[in-house]
Amino acid sequence: MILRLSQLFVRTLRDDPADAEVPSHRLLVRAGYIRRAAPGIYTWLPLGLRVYRKVEQIVRDEMDAIGAQELQFPALLPKEPYEATNRWTEYGDGIFRVQDRKGADYLLGPTHEEMFTLTVKDLYSSYKDLPVWLYQIQTKYRDEARPRAGLMRGREFVMKDSYSFDVDDAGLERSYEAHRAAYVRIFDRFGFDYAIVRATSGAMGGSRSEEFLARLDVGEDTYVRSPGGYAANVEAVTTLAPEPVAYDDVPAAHAEDTPATPTIATLVDHLNAAFPRDDRPWSAGDTLKNVLVTLTHPDGTREPLAIGVPGDREVDQKRLEGQLEPIGVAPMTDEEMKEFPALVKGYIGPAHGGRTVLGEESETGIRYLVDPRVVTGTRWVTGANVDGQHVIDLVAGRDFTPDGTIEAAEVKAGDPAPDGSGPLELARGIEMGHVFQLGRKYAEALGLQVLDENGKLVTVTMGSYGIGVSRAVPVIAEYNHDDAGLVWPREVAPADVHVVAAGKGEELFAAAERISAELSAAGLDVIYDDRAGKVSPGVKFKDAELIGVPTIVVVGKGLADGVVEIKDRRSGDREEVAVDAVVERTVAAVRG
Amino acid sequence: MILRLSQLFVRTLRDDPADAEVPSHRLLVRAGYIRRAAPGIYTWLPLGLRVYRKVEQIVRDEMDAIGAQELQFPALLPKEPYEATNRWTEYGDGIFRVQDRKGADYLLGPTHEEMFTLTVKDLYSSYKDLPVWLYQIQTKYRDEARPRAGLMRGREFVMKDSYSFDVDDAGLERSYEAHRAAYVRIFDRFGFDYAIVRATSGAMGGSRSEEFLARLDVGEDTYVRSPGGYAANVEAVTTLAPEPVAYDDVPAAHAEDTPATPTIATLVDHLNAAFPRDDRPWSAGDTLKNVLVTLTHPDGTREPLAIGVPGDREVDQKRLEGQLEPIGVAPMTDEEMKEFPALVKGYIGPAHGGRTVLGEESETGIRYLVDPRVVTGTRWVTGANVDGQHVIDLVAGRDFTPDGTIEAAEVKAGDPAPDGSGPLELARGIEMGHVFQLGRKYAEALGLQVLDENGKLVTVTMGSYGIGVSRAVPVIAEYNHDDAGLVWPREVAPADVHVVAAGKGEELFAAAERISAELSAAGLDVIYDDRAGKVSPGVKFKDAELIGVPTIVVVGKGLADGVVEIKDRRSGDREEVAVDAVVERTVAAVRG
Repeated sequence: MILRLSQLFVRTLRDDPADAEVPSHRLLVRAGYIRRAAPGIYTWLPLGLRVYRKVEQIVRDEMDAIGAQELQFPALLPKEPYEATNRWTEYGDGIFRVQDRKGADYLLGPTHEEMFTLTVKDLYSSYKDLPVWLYQIQTKYRDEARPRAGLMRGREFVMKDSYSFDVDDAGLERSYEAHRAAYVRIFDRFGFDYAIVRATSGAMGGSRSEEFLARLDVGEDTYVRSPGGYAANVEAVTTLAPEPVAYDDVPAAHAEDTPATPTIATLVDHLNAAFPRDDRPWSAGDTLKNVLVTLTHPDGTREPLAIGVPGDREVDQKRLEGQLEPIGVAPMTDEEMKEFPALVKGYIGPAHGGRTVLGEESETGIRYLVDPRVVTGTRWVTGANVDGQHVIDLVAGRDFTPDGTIEAAEVKAGDPAPDGSGPLELARGIEMGHVFQLGRKYAEALGLQVLDENGKLVTVTMGSYGIGVSRAVPVIAEYNHDDAGLVWPREVAPADVHVVAAGKGEELFAAAERISAELSAAGLDVIYDDRAGKVSPGVKFKDAELIGVPTIVVVGKGLADGVVEIKDRRSGDREEVAVDAVVERTVAAVRG
Repeated sequence: MILRLSQLFVRTLRDDPADAEVPSHRLLVRAGYIRRAAPGIYTWLPLGLRVYRKVEQIVRDEMDAIGAQELQFPALLPKEPYEATNRWTEYGDGIFRVQDRKGADYLLGPTHEEMFTLTVKDLYSSYKDLPVWLYQIQTKYRDEARPRAGLMRGREFVMKDSYSFDVDDAGLERSYEAHRAAYVRIFDRFGFDYAIVRATSGAMGGSRSEEFLARLDVGEDTYVRSPGGYAANVEAVTTLAPEPVAYDDVPAAHAEDTPATPTIATLVDHLNAAFPRDDRPWSAGDTLKNVLVTLTHPDGTREPLAIGVPGDREVDQKRLEGQLEPIGVAPMTDEEMKEFPALVKGYIGPAHGGRTVLGEESETGIRYLVDPRVVTGTRWVTGANVDGQHVIDLVAGRDFTPDGTIEAAEVKAGDPAPDGSGPLELARGIEMGHVFQLGRKYAEALGLQVLDENGKLVTVTMGSYGIGVSRAVPVIAEYNHDDAGLVWPREVAPADVHVVAAGKGEELFAAAERISAELSAAGLDVIYDDRAGKVSPGVKFKDAELIGVPTIVVVGKGLADGVVEIKDRRSGDREEVAVDAVVERTVAAVRG
C-alpha cells in the first residue's frame, strides 16, 4: 500500500499548538496525526487512525489469546442499571447525562460494569457456563474537570474493558492472573517502561487491585517504590504507624502566646526563639496541623470533617479523595466555618484547657481523623483554640482522643515502605491499565446468580480489567520521539517505510515511484513523498523526521551513481545501497 | 480459529422476542447475535460483532479502493459549528443534546458535515490539494421518534459517511460518480437486491441526489419505478401536470345543499343521487379536498397552510414533510382553526359567492397551495364555506387562483412517470445508502475557500455519501434466512464452517475435535459444537440452522462407517464423505 504525500490528508505544522503541554501532544498535532475538536475531544486524522488501529489490534490479539470474547455495548446507556448500583448518583459531575425526546434519562457510558453484569445474567444461569471473560474496545465518555495533554486525559476516549465472571474466589484469582499476564504482554509489545503498582479500587469496590503505570515524568500519577520491590500508587500507600510511646515524663500541656505565627514555618521559628528545646530545635514535624473540610455525600448531604496531620506534611488531595470516594471533599469555606464559633481560624486544636473542640463528642461535634503517625503518647504543638495561642506538649491519648485515622497526609521520599522493604522513592507515571477484583458488588446489586454444583443459587464474583487504548498512542509517542519528531516502534508505525523523492527531474521521480511500488509489492506499507514543485528536499526530510516512520529511503543525488540512501529514523544511521538492492535491504530492515 | 459452543458467549432462544416485528430482528436475537439495551439501542454479542466487522470491512475495502482516506471524528461535538449552519436549531428533537459540567452545549453527532468541512478548511488552502475524499465509519446518534425493527432504525448506529471536496462542479461530478460506483460494488458484495432511486436531499440542500434502497417488503420507504427505467423515492416523484384545459362551456359555479356528506365517499354518492352527470358518474377525483396544516419554522414561528388535492388522493405525510423540511408540519388543531371563523369544518373551499377564503389575498390570509393536477380550466366540487353546502363547477383560474403548487398528494400505482417512461409501480425498500451533491452550502456557511489556479479565492463544492453500516447486518439477514434460521452469505458469515459433534462417546468427540482443528489449521474459522452432556443432536442441529453458518459438518453415527456429513445450509444438500476427505471437501466448499 502506498500513501502519497501529494494526496494524503495531512499537513505538518512548523509551530507547536498553543495548548500543547507535553511533547506527544505537540508532535501528534504538528505531524498531522490528530486535531482538537473541543476541549479533551480529538479527531484522528488518517496517519493517527493508522497508529491507533495497530495499537487496538495488539490489545485485541492478546485478549483473544487468553480466550476472552469480544462484544460491544452501546455508549448511550439507560439510567436504570446505574441507579440500581447507585452510580447514577455517585458519578456526580463526572459523566455526561442525556435526555431523550420523551424525557427518559441516559448517560454516555464511562464504564460498563452494569451492562456486562446484566448481559451475563440474561444469558447464563449455571456454574457450568463459568468462567466467562468478556471484553469490548469502545468509545467512552467522562466529563473530566481538567482534560489535559491531548489524548492522555480526554473526555471522549477508547478503553478496552473486560470483565471476568466466576463462581468462586479461586476462580476469580485465576481469571485475575490470566488478565494480568495478558496485560504484561500488551505493555511489553507497546514497549512501555511500566510499573505494576498496588492501587485502591476507588468507587468500584473490591479487593485485589493493581495499576499498570507507564513511567513518564509528564504523567499525572505519582507512585512509590522501595528497594525491596514494594510499589503502589500514592493513593494506596499505607503508613507504617509507629508503636505507642510512653509519655510519663511529658509535662502537662500548656498554652503559650504565639503571636504572628500564621504558618507552620513562622510557628517553628517562634517556638525556637521563645521556647527552645534542650534536646534539639523544634521542627515542623513537632506540630499538628488541623485541616477542615466539608464532605458531600452522594445523596447531597454535607458533613464537616477535621483532619490532623504532622505539620511537616501537606494533606494530599488525591489520597484524601481516594479514601473518601464516592464522597466528595472540598476545603471548608469561611462561611461554613462560621457555624462553629469554637473554631478560631489559624489556632484550631483538638482540645485544651478543659475544652474539647474537635471530635464527635466535642463542642463542635466535628468528626476528627488523624494521620496514623499520631499514635498514643506522641506529643504535639497545636492550636489552643484561642487567637494567638498554641498549646505545647499536647499528648495524643492523654489530652485528646481522635475518632480514628485517615491516610490523607502526603507520602514523602524516604518514608518506610509499609511491608518493611525499605525507604520509598517517588516516581511519576500515567495509568495505562488497571486490573482488580470487583468481587460481588455488581452481581449483588443486579442479582447475577447461578446454580452451583449442588443446585444452590450463588452470587457470581467478578474481575474488572481496563486498558486506555487511545491513551496508549500519546504514551508510546512520549517514549518514542526526539527533537526532530516522532520515532515510532515498527509494530505501531503508520507505515513501514517513508520514501523521499529528494530532488528534481523525471528520472528521479520515476525511480522513487518504482522503488515505492516494489516495496509495496513486497508487502510493506509505504509513505511516498512524491510532492513535486516547490517542496524542497529539506522540507521533505524534515517532514519525514517529524512523521517518524522507522525506515526512510532517500532517492536523491546519489541516483546518478546508482545509489540511494536507507536511513534508520531512530539511530540516524545511514547506508548507501545500490538501487537494485534497495528493496531487499529495506525489507530486511523492516522485518528485522 | 475455533469458537467452541461450550464456551462461546451465546444462548439461542426458542421463542421470538416480544418486541421483534421483522424476521431479521427475531432471528438475530434468537440466534444470539444482538441484545436490546434500550429502545433502538443494541449490544453486539460475539457472533453479531463478527458479522458486523465483516460488513464494515467490505465498506472500508471499497472506499479505500477508490482512494478515499479514512479518519475518525468524535461523536461528542461542540455546538458552535452546528449553529453556524443552523442545524443546531433545524434538527429539533431529532438529536441528543448534552451539556458538560461547565454548561457548554454539545450534541451527539447525527452526521458530520460541519466537522469534515472545518477540518479541510484547517488543513487545505489550494486547488492543488483537491479533490480530496474523506470518510469515517462511526457510531452516530439520532433521537428517532419511532425506533423500529431492531438495528434497522436504531438511535445508536454505525454509518460510513464520506465527503468529497472539489474546486468546481465538474470535479464534484467526477467525485460523485466514483462514490456511486463504489456503492454499487459494496451493495453487490452485500448481495442486496437494490434499486438506485432519485431522491430529494432533504435538510441537506444540494442538487443531484440518489438513494440506494434495498428492496424489502419490511422496508419503511416506498419508491416508484417505471417500465422505462425511472426510479425515485416517493418524496422525489414529481407530478406530470396536465396541460390547461378550456373551460368556455363550463357553467357558472353553483352552491348546492349536500347534507350529511362528511366524507368524500358520501359526497360522491350524494352528487350521483342528487346531481347526476350526463357523461359519467361523479367520482372522488372530481372533488377538491382542502387540508389545513400548521407549519413550525426552525425559529419557532408558526404559519397556517391550506393544501388542495384531488379527492381521490390522500396527502402523503412524508412527501409533504420532504417538501417543507426543515419546517415542521402538523394537522391544524380545532383550537387553531377557531382563529379563522371563515373556515367551516367539512365545507372548506377556496372561494365562492363573491368570497375568497383560501389564499394569501383571501379573508383568512392562509397560503393556499394545490396539487400540480389542479391546472387552469379544471373543474371541481369543493366546500362552499357554508355548513352543509358544496360548490359545483368551480373552475381553477376562473373562480379561484391558488398561491402555487405543492407535491403533497400520494403517488399511486399507474401514475405516469414524470419523464414519460410509462406508468409507475410502487415498491417497498429500506435506505441503505445515499449519494448526493451537497454543493457549497456547508463550505459557504463555514468559509471553506481555496485559491484557484489564478490565485483567486473560490468556495469549495462538496459531495456527501452515506451508508448504514450497522443497518446492513439486519438487511442482509432479511435476504438470507428461512424458517429454520439465518443463512449467511459466505463473505459475512460469523464462521466458515459449523462442526457438530452429534452423538456420544469419546471417539466421536475426538474425531470432531480433530476435524475442527484441521479445518482451523487450513485457515477456516470454525464454530465447533462441542457441548457434551444433555445437549441432544437434535438441539445441536437446530442451533446450527438458527446460527446459519453456510457449511455444516456433522460428525455422527456415520463415523462408525468412516463417514461424516457435509451439509450446505442454504440448499440443504447433504453429502456423505470419508473422514479422511472431509477437510479437503469442506475447504473446497468454503472457497467455492
